[in-house]
Amino acid sequence: MKRYEKFADQIAELIRSGMLTPGEKVPSVRHASRTYGVSPSTVFQAYYLLEDRGLIQARARSGYFVRELARHSLAEPETSAQAAQTTEVDVSELVFSVLGSLKDPHTVPFGSAFPSPQLFPLPRLARSMAHALRDMPAHAVITDMTSGNPDLRRQIALRYMVAGVRLPLDELVITNGALEALNLCLQTVTSPGDLVAIEAPAFYATLQVLERLKLKAVEIPVNPREGIDLEVLAERLANLPIKACWFMSSLQNPLGASMSDSKKQALYELLQQRQVPLIEDDVYAELYYGAQPPKPVKSFDRDGLVMHCGSFSKSLAPGYRVGWVAGGRYAEQISRLKLMTTISPSVPAQAAIADYLQHGGYDRHLRKLRHALETQQGAMLASAARHFPAGTRVTRPSGGYFLWFEFPEQVDSLQLFQLALAQGISLAPGPIFSATRRFRNCARLNHGHPWDAQSEQAMELIGRILASF
Amino acid sequence: MKRYEKFADQIAELIRSGMLTPGEKVPSVRHASRTYGVSPSTVFQAYYLLEDRGLIQARARSGYFVRELARHSLAEPETSAQAAQTTEVDVSELVFSVLGSLKDPHTVPFGSAFPSPQLFPLPRLARSMAHALRDMPAHAVITDMTSGNPDLRRQIALRYMVAGVRLPLDELVITNGALEALNLCLQTVTSPGDLVAIEAPAFYATLQVLERLKLKAVEIPVNPREGIDLEVLAERLANLPIKACWFMSSLQNPLGASMSDSKKQALYELLQQRQVPLIEDDVYAELYYGAQPPKPVKSFDRDGLVMHCGSFSKSLAPGYRVGWVAGGRYAEQISRLKLMTTISPSVPAQAAIADYLQHGGYDRHLRKLRHALETQQGAMLASAARHFPAGTRVTRPSGGYFLWFEFPEQVDSLQLFQLALAQGISLAPGPIFSATRRFRNCARLNHGHPWDAQSEQAMELIGRILASF
Repeated sequence: MKRYEKFADQIAELIRSGMLTPGEKVPSVRHASRTYGVSPSTVFQAYYLLEDRGLIQARARSGYFVRELARHSLAEPETSAQAAQTTEVDVSELVFSVLGSLKDPHTVPFGSAFPSPQLFPLPRLARSMAHALRDMPAHAVITDMTSGNPDLRRQIALRYMVAGVRLPLDELVITNGALEALNLCLQTVTSPGDLVAIEAPAFYATLQVLERLKLKAVEIPVNPREGIDLEVLAERLANLPIKACWFMSSLQNPLGASMSDSKKQALYELLQQRQVPLIEDDVYAELYYGAQPPKPVKSFDRDGLVMHCGSFSKSLAPGYRVGWVAGGRYAEQISRLKLMTTISPSVPAQAAIADYLQHGGYDRHLRKLRHALETQQGAMLASAARHFPAGTRVTRPSGGYFLWFEFPEQVDSLQLFQLALAQGISLAPGPIFSATRRFRNCARLNHGHPWDAQSEQAMELIGRILASF
Repeated sequence: MKRYEKFADQIAELIRSGMLTPGEKVPSVRHASRTYGVSPSTVFQAYYLLEDRGLIQARARSGYFVRELARHSLAEPETSAQAAQTTEVDVSELVFSVLGSLKDPHTVPFGSAFPSPQLFPLPRLARSMAHALRDMPAHAVITDMTSGNPDLRRQIALRYMVAGVRLPLDELVITNGALEALNLCLQTVTSPGDLVAIEAPAFYATLQVLERLKLKAVEIPVNPREGIDLEVLAERLANLPIKACWFMSSLQNPLGASMSDSKKQALYELLQQRQVPLIEDDVYAELYYGAQPPKPVKSFDRDGLVMHCGSFSKSLAPGYRVGWVAGGRYAEQISRLKLMTTISPSVPAQAAIADYLQHGGYDRHLRKLRHALETQQGAMLASAARHFPAGTRVTRPSGGYFLWFEFPEQVDSLQLFQLALAQGISLAPGPIFSATRRFRNCARLNHGHPWDAQSEQAMELIGRILASF
């Protein structure tokens, strides 16, 4: 990381934390150079970078100012309302009809679940693949199936260690993406008919998996800034035979909520006391915007109660289908279940990622990726403030590539979805994120693609449709 | 395929079909050259090849003779006995304890489920991978997840067409190896508690999957030459609410049985009449020794009742984890189930195999692979005849890389397994192939690895252990 990048990150942190507010002047080059002990050219380069990332803007002859997103900005939504105590899940048909509509590559992909593949180092990964396959002994195609590529396992464990989680290597099970990991975890700790606590709104695949395994959902409300409502959870745990929790404690999909460290610890203590296992879906862990990576609940785990699921699909290698779970006390059962269903993720894909993690510059790529996503978030927030009706609320996640919009009451997002799609724009309507088909007037929009004139037009068009309700 | 290779295959077919019997003289070069209208040098080259493949042997000054395996050879086993009508499955622990013992790379791998990776064109596949990744548009890492690599789909459909099966492209679901396909098929057509007809002995993963999904097994006896007993099946179908059949109609694992075409048709008609779906596990389809590929039951399917599962793991690309199912009327349900569990097999792995199928020379590789496996089968059969006790029976599959041994009554194969393992030799004991833990005196031995002095010693050692019972 170059000096000007480090300095840019310092300033960005001041903006993020509110020390520098929208519209406020950023220190002059001379002043900054003196105060922070860096050369004027470093400051210049840092300011250019921050301008590029949409955090500050130059005004002729006046210097740089923090961008005034805030002035036009929309309010944040409240904590989601409480639902019935338990719910049979039946949302798959709706989800598939929405997903099916996303196939056309000419559609503006606000409904997509993935960021743009352009943001990933695919050519560098291809080199890692060639390198790894050249060096791989023939027997590895067989032996690496059972427990995974050993280098990849070590690299993943190393990243846990750097994040402050000490992990015995044999807790790690390499899987076909995080979704397989989550499926395996849930099957390991539940039987058909059991109750599982999930977030509301929740990632729609969570609902589909529950439906498939004939599990019942106990929906816990989520605050867009602070995450799940621990009081409601405690009450539910006390009164219902909940067999497992499936939560995203950081950058929750779709709200983008991240729990604080102390709240994560409190969640762990609550579950530990009742010995209810936590399936922690942490696939956006690497996509935080700030200086500090969020801690997983897993970092507080003393007795292997937390199954922590991660993936390279959202941070490095979409389509390679390599994820994992740090399975705690359930690791061996999870591993066996995997051997009975898919045996193993692709051995070459594992080897390519292992090589990239060792030689490819993962952390450098991640910094670029985070900056791109943060810039694009700013662009979408600003665009929404310009085009969406007053009374619209929107989240402000500190990472990831989703915004959650709460539109005025009269908006029906399923209708909005159909009308926008007819104009070549996709979005993810609120009801697919709920077992009870709530969030009728909400939608998730993806800002994982480079922002351009087409994106801006699409927002304007959605705005017009919204106004027609 | 060169002329001498074609001619060699003609002679091999005469030996296989019994037209030329063990010990019999093969036509002299002059005679063969005149009779078959090929040059003497073509005959010479063909005979060298056949000698290499262990089918004929030269005797000084007398010419070539069909190898006399038959003279010392062991008898074939009978049809497996009938079991109780339905069985709760509980074999996983036993299977895992056996599989766990196979991890040591220095063990003689007679217990392995895979052929030697040395027999596969791994460097050529790596070139295909590099080629495919260079040409792949970035968006493919996302779009190829939903329905699979389009070139791969076309190549697979083409191979069906060549085999005489016309397949609508949208019947094809690309999966993480055949085992995922089989799991998905079974979940699509059954619910916990249902009855499923399987073979006895059956592939142990079949038993594990049934156990995992809480299904009950109805075991159908298998004749080592002719496959399952249709009469027993008909009777069971008439009297029990069987929800699905899971059979290997060609080169059944572990017996190596292949049903005749007419029997396959009869099986289809029986199931069609009762509208019971067939999950056809056909992972060894490409490993036949004869001139003609076996037809799948799928080729008789008129109404989408057959889910035909295949894979590249045993024929081309072990560890890549790419398989498929031609899902008939269940294809869409299968595809949706996959999207909810693993989403997709690795996109680069799919692309590499698609490239190889187009440019790599798959059929040439398969011919070499089949010859190697056939040669190795001959070597193991001959070695067993030398070292195993009289009264041992053994199958003679017309393809694949497994032999099924039925030892004298007093042999306990679980004990045999332990004793052999202590000497660094693995094998697959009979009881892991049965829901009722039968086949106590049987074992499956893998001849998928090049035969050498160590293999011969290992057989001798197993022979000594067998004698000690």
